[in-house]
Amino acid sequence: MRTYRLAAPGSEKPIEPGTEERPVPGPAQLLVRTRAAALNRRDLMITTGRYPLPSRPGVVPLSDGAGEVVEAGADVTRFRAGDRVTASYWPRWISGQLRPDLLDQLGCTVDGWLAEYVLLDEAAAVAVPGHLTWAEAAALPCAGVTAWNALTRSGLLTAGQTVLTLGTGDVSLFAVQLAKLMGCRVITTTSSAAKADRLKALGADEVVDYVANPDWSGEVRRLTGGAGADLVVETQGPATIGQSLRAAATYAQICLLWVVSARPETLVITEDDLSGSLATIRREFVGSRTDLEALCRAVEAGGLRPVVDRAFAFDDAAEAYASFRDDAGFGKVVIEL
Amino acid sequence: MRTYRLAAPGSEKPIEPGTEERPVPGPAQLLVRTRAAALNRRDLMITTGRYPLPSRPGVVPLSDGAGEVVEAGADVTRFRAGDRVTASYWPRWISGQLRPDLLDQLGCTVDGWLAEYVLLDEAAAVAVPGHLTWAEAAALPCAGVTAWNALTRSGLLTAGQTVLTLGTGDVSLFAVQLAKLMGCRVITTTSSAAKADRLKALGADEVVDYVANPDWSGEVRRLTGGAGADLVVETQGPATIGQSLRAAATYAQICLLWVVSARPETLVITEDDLSGSLATIRREFVGSRTDLEALCRAVEAGGLRPVVDRAFAFDDAAEAYASFRDDAGFGKVVIEL
Amino acid sequence: MRTYRLAAPGSEKPIEPGTEERPVPGPAQLLVRTRAAALNRRDLMITTGRYPLPSRPGVVPLSDGAGEVVEAGADVTRFRAGDRVTASYWPRWISGQLRPDLLDQLGCTVDGWLAEYVLLDEAAAVAVPGHLTWAEAAALPCAGVTAWNALTRSGLLTAGQTVLTLGTGDVSLFAVQLAKLMGCRVITTTSSAAKADRLKALGADEVVDYVANPDWSGEVRRLTGGAGADLVVETQGPATIGQSLRAAATYAQICLLWVVSARPETLVITEDDLSGSLATIRREFVGSRTDLEALCRAVEAGGLRPVVDRAFAFDDAAEAYASFRDDAGFGKVVIEL
Amino acid sequence: MRTYRLAAPGSEKPIEPGTEERPVPGPAQLLVRTRAAALNRRDLMITTGRYPLPSRPGVVPLSDGAGEVVEAGADVTRFRAGDRVTASYWPRWISGQLRPDLLDQLGCTVDGWLAEYVLLDEAAAVAVPGHLTWAEAAALPCAGVTAWNALTRSGLLTAGQTVLTLGTGDVSLFAVQLAKLMGCRVITTTSSAAKADRLKALGADEVVDYVANPDWSGEVRRLTGGAGADLVVETQGPATIGQSLRAAATYAQICLLWVVSARPETLVITEDDLSGSLATIRREFVGSRTDLEALCRAVEAGGLRPVVDRAFAFDDAAEAYASFRDDAGFGKVVIEL
Repeated sequence: MRTYRLAAPGSEKPIEPGTEERPVPGPAQLLVRTRAAALNRRDLMITTGRYPLPSRPGVVPLSDGAGEVVEAGADVTRFRAGDRVTASYWPRWISGQLRPDLLDQLGCTVDGWLAEYVLLDEAAAVAVPGHLTWAEAAALPCAGVTAWNALTRSGLLTAGQTVLTLGTGDVSLFAVQLAKLMGCRVITTTSSAAKADRLKALGADEVVDYVANPDWSGEVRRLTGGAGADLVVETQGPATIGQSLRAAATYAQICLLWVVSARPETLVITEDDLSGSLATIRREFVGSRTDLEALCRAVEAGGLRPVVDRAFAFDDAAEAYASFRDDAGFGKVVIEL
Repeated sequence: MRTYRLAAPGSEKPIEPGTEERPVPGPAQLLVRTRAAALNRRDLMITTGRYPLPSRPGVVPLSDGAGEVVEAGADVTRFRAGDRVTASYWPRWISGQLRPDLLDQLGCTVDGWLAEYVLLDEAAAVAVPGHLTWAEAAALPCAGVTAWNALTRSGLLTAGQTVLTLGTGDVSLFAVQLAKLMGCRVITTTSSAAKADRLKALGADEVVDYVANPDWSGEVRRLTGGAGADLVVETQGPATIGQSLRAAATYAQICLLWVVSARPETLVITEDDLSGSLATIRREFVGSRTDLEALCRAVEAGGLRPVVDRAFAFDDAAEAYASFRDDAGFGKVVIEL
Repeated sequence: MRTYRLAAPGSEKPIEPGTEERPVPGPAQLLVRTRAAALNRRDLMITTGRYPLPSRPGVVPLSDGAGEVVEAGADVTRFRAGDRVTASYWPRWISGQLRPDLLDQLGCTVDGWLAEYVLLDEAAAVAVPGHLTWAEAAALPCAGVTAWNALTRSGLLTAGQTVLTLGTGDVSLFAVQLAKLMGCRVITTTSSAAKADRLKALGADEVVDYVANPDWSGEVRRLTGGAGADLVVETQGPATIGQSLRAAATYAQICLLWVVSARPETLVITEDDLSGSLATIRREFVGSRTDLEALCRAVEAGGLRPVVDRAFAFDDAAEAYASFRDDAGFGKVVIEL
Repeated sequence: MRTYRLAAPGSEKPIEPGTEERPVPGPAQLLVRTRAAALNRRDLMITTGRYPLPSRPGVVPLSDGAGEVVEAGADVTRFRAGDRVTASYWPRWISGQLRPDLLDQLGCTVDGWLAEYVLLDEAAAVAVPGHLTWAEAAALPCAGVTAWNALTRSGLLTAGQTVLTLGTGDVSLFAVQLAKLMGCRVITTTSSAAKADRLKALGADEVVDYVANPDWSGEVRRLTGGAGADLVVETQGPATIGQSLRAAATYAQICLLWVVSARPETLVITEDDLSGSLATIRREFVGSRTDLEALCRAVEAGGLRPVVDRAFAFDDAAEAYASFRDDAGFGKVVIEL
């Protein structure tokens, strides 16, 4: 089968193509024929050494993908050949809280989806909602689960509350869709009129131009009658945390999903940033298999479709990396097989 | 102004019409011109002595209504003349938990909405979502808040989970609408094909005929792939609790909203009813002003419209009582002024 | 090694002694030399066919025990030879919620502790607090975790609240100790003056004689200034549920741990039982490994010692069963090796 | 009666003595004879203009105090003459969440305790635990409730978890006592050997010298076997937030109770500070009357005694301010009448 593996540090290209034996599933494993894989910012970080956890040299990259089960090990009970599956970002984190003994990650410490076939532990696999294309299904594990946990894990967000999202990264787009599915009002930010239209088409109730309004927290307060946003999906960190706090309702949640950037940065929070609320700053690091299953149920109940921006062929995987690095676009960058 | 007051026990009619001086608001009160009032099962219970809390003889009945502020007391800050308002079922329960010193209820221990004008404490009043008619706005305080708290108070219900509602009482209809607004899947029960169609039009994903399927919990399990419902809005109590428990997912919530019936009844729960899950049985007794405000925000965000079945004129209030008693219909029975 | 296994249904004795090869640990397993095992009501139920889940014929009985690691499989990382360990009642339920694929139970579907050596999956094992004797350590997995989750899982119990426990079963005694450790006030019931003294020595603030006060809920209300108990550890079910509900504070939790009795029974709850509160009825079925670890941390932080009533030699295991069946005593019945 | 009132800005002394008419309680008010009042850092901030909320010029200062009811208004039902009471920091915040219409504070926007008599709204008053002296009772409303909510409001802290407190401020001392009452393990920091001894006498399990260990988070990790603290009562803010985050367990709570300092400061958080956990940063601003009642129940159940460091006579109130400003000591600075 054809695969890609992480290139050695210092290589020109981030990934190296190759040909390998098709693997054989162990008794509790599934052999899955990959149909689509999707890129996330973390995949770029792994190639540049900026990802906060260690990765295994030469690993098959990409945490996100979907495919059909070709063969199931003898002890497998939850799936069989022909099933459409995706898998948990953390294949050993099944439910409850993340623990130090559960830190394996697909496409980082264990082989991921950028290969014609992938071996999954049955315990990591999750059935894909029936209405999704392969590309849409491949979009769920990283950005989808992150957005899901940002909105739901505290159990405090209810219909009618206001969710603030920042920009048009993948997590933000999922958060817009999911927050609307939950009956929330959504305010989002962008500086592009074209993206503003697409955000509204996706469900955003209000779009604030953060370039025209550098103090955009004031605009969020105005749009909420002074109350502020109940939950902020804070995907940008250092650049926006002050405004996010100023936009926050008295008991708001700021879900800080700091997408680590090219060089080390620092959060700076002033007294004034904190003076308008008692907001809680929570964090999420994707989520467990149970969270991915919950997301899939919600996606299915709501008939929600992840936004796919552009697709590349397997042979053009290196181009997909470059394209994603240079232009996040509006929606997922996927590789179809 | 024209009013109705509870008739003396043993009277032929439940309510007595009268004419009184229009009241004058105290410094923290609003004088509100009633535009619509709505009946709830509890209003019938109060007239028959089956309501579980004591009522004041000769009180102006009805907890539910809406109208416009005509005059605001000198200390009032949150409303002014012309505002459209409704009020909390428990006018002194503002937020947090119900306490023994907060037990006043509109239309029970303090005068309610069945009068041309009503005096409201500012602290009890809530602004009405702009898109609602008077009749729709009047529908919110009792059944609406009860359904809202049944679904939201535990913080455990998420989009994609399955909510089971029973029949077509007012709380059940609100629960169908609100659960859909929250992105849930809704299964409901009825024995009427006509009502089944209306339930589906309201958003129910599946309707189970409990007469054709006396063991309807089995059908709910089948429709959920064996998993059971995640939340049951248990509005019927003794008649259904066993089936509700059997329909429940492992960690389901049964929100027991026992609508007290004509004579004392008893919940009977067998070992087998309990053996299929670890379901929690929660209870709600309407909710606080803060809950009503949260409901209004959700109704507004979702553009949701309470179901109004039929309307009566103020002069025909006694007919409204009789009609509501004899045929709950499908939606609220309201009195318009 | 010497073992006991469940006798065939209809046998005179519940368990059969035998001699078997000492097992060899798999790569992710521990071989543990049993030092103490403890009996629970569920072990009697398994022998009489009244346990609500199926058991494997001829299984080595007992869910509760403690011992030292003799050998660790090649992949084991969390333990090594010499470590003192106990294990989770449900060896595959690590954290989060119970699921249908996690229903194995020690001493029921998989071999338990009534043998000189036991094989444990590393994932099921938990280190024992250092200050405990073997008998005390063996007491934790079933009754200890049940009491722990009864008190802690909802996250609502705080220091200063009142916990009501019923009688002197093992779960009740743990609940008294743990509730005191958490800074709660404890009211308990018994009809024996001698046991009342021991309950007070264990930490109970008040002991109510339920024979002298058949309406003992009234006494609980009196002792709480009318407010009622904030949490009831309801270990008895049909016999006491009505009084438990009447003793409950407005937002009390009733943790229903129905110890199934000799023949099928039914919970009967009247309108009046429910009229004094909005109590929630929760349930627990022991708990996960993570819960057992949390209990161990609490036991260690508080220097708490489980109550051991009497000990039997391994050769006298059948006598231990008979003794436990005929007289629960005051504390755990253990078998020491 | 004799009183003190805030001096005009720019005065030499922070407070001015005076003589006034004894006030007369309104129908829902209590007239209370002050027996003790206590100083908090916020009282100094009010005098220096660094308190984050506006204060009323010439207000009677001090949020904390206790006394006996001398006269109760005609509508008062919960108290009567002779009762020992204290009061909520926010007299209008009864329960639930803080709202913009509830921002009155004793000793800031409404008259506080530094007078021979104080008028309290019945709704703000709370009965004092019987075993406390007047000085101890006066210590509860600000620092006590803050520590209580820091530990309890999330519902996540359980017995056996590790609480980290910083230094020997009043909130920290309460947190040590309350965390021990809840069965937690307590690690605290100080640089003084004498204070370390007193912290241990108060219940601290471990005391870390932050001068000897500038990277004291490493010591906290070592003391917790690498796991980190489950809850940090972060009373110092800018100076310590980085170390607090580094000391935090994966799902720790950092309760940020930033005691505003002499001049504006800024929280600076680096990538590395955040890389070891997914800690949540929560905030508290004292709490509601219901929280104060819950604290009182816990203090009573545990027989806990607030630490009083030194007492001043009413005539020496200005000296008390100066003494508190210059040396926080170890425990409350109180004024006795």
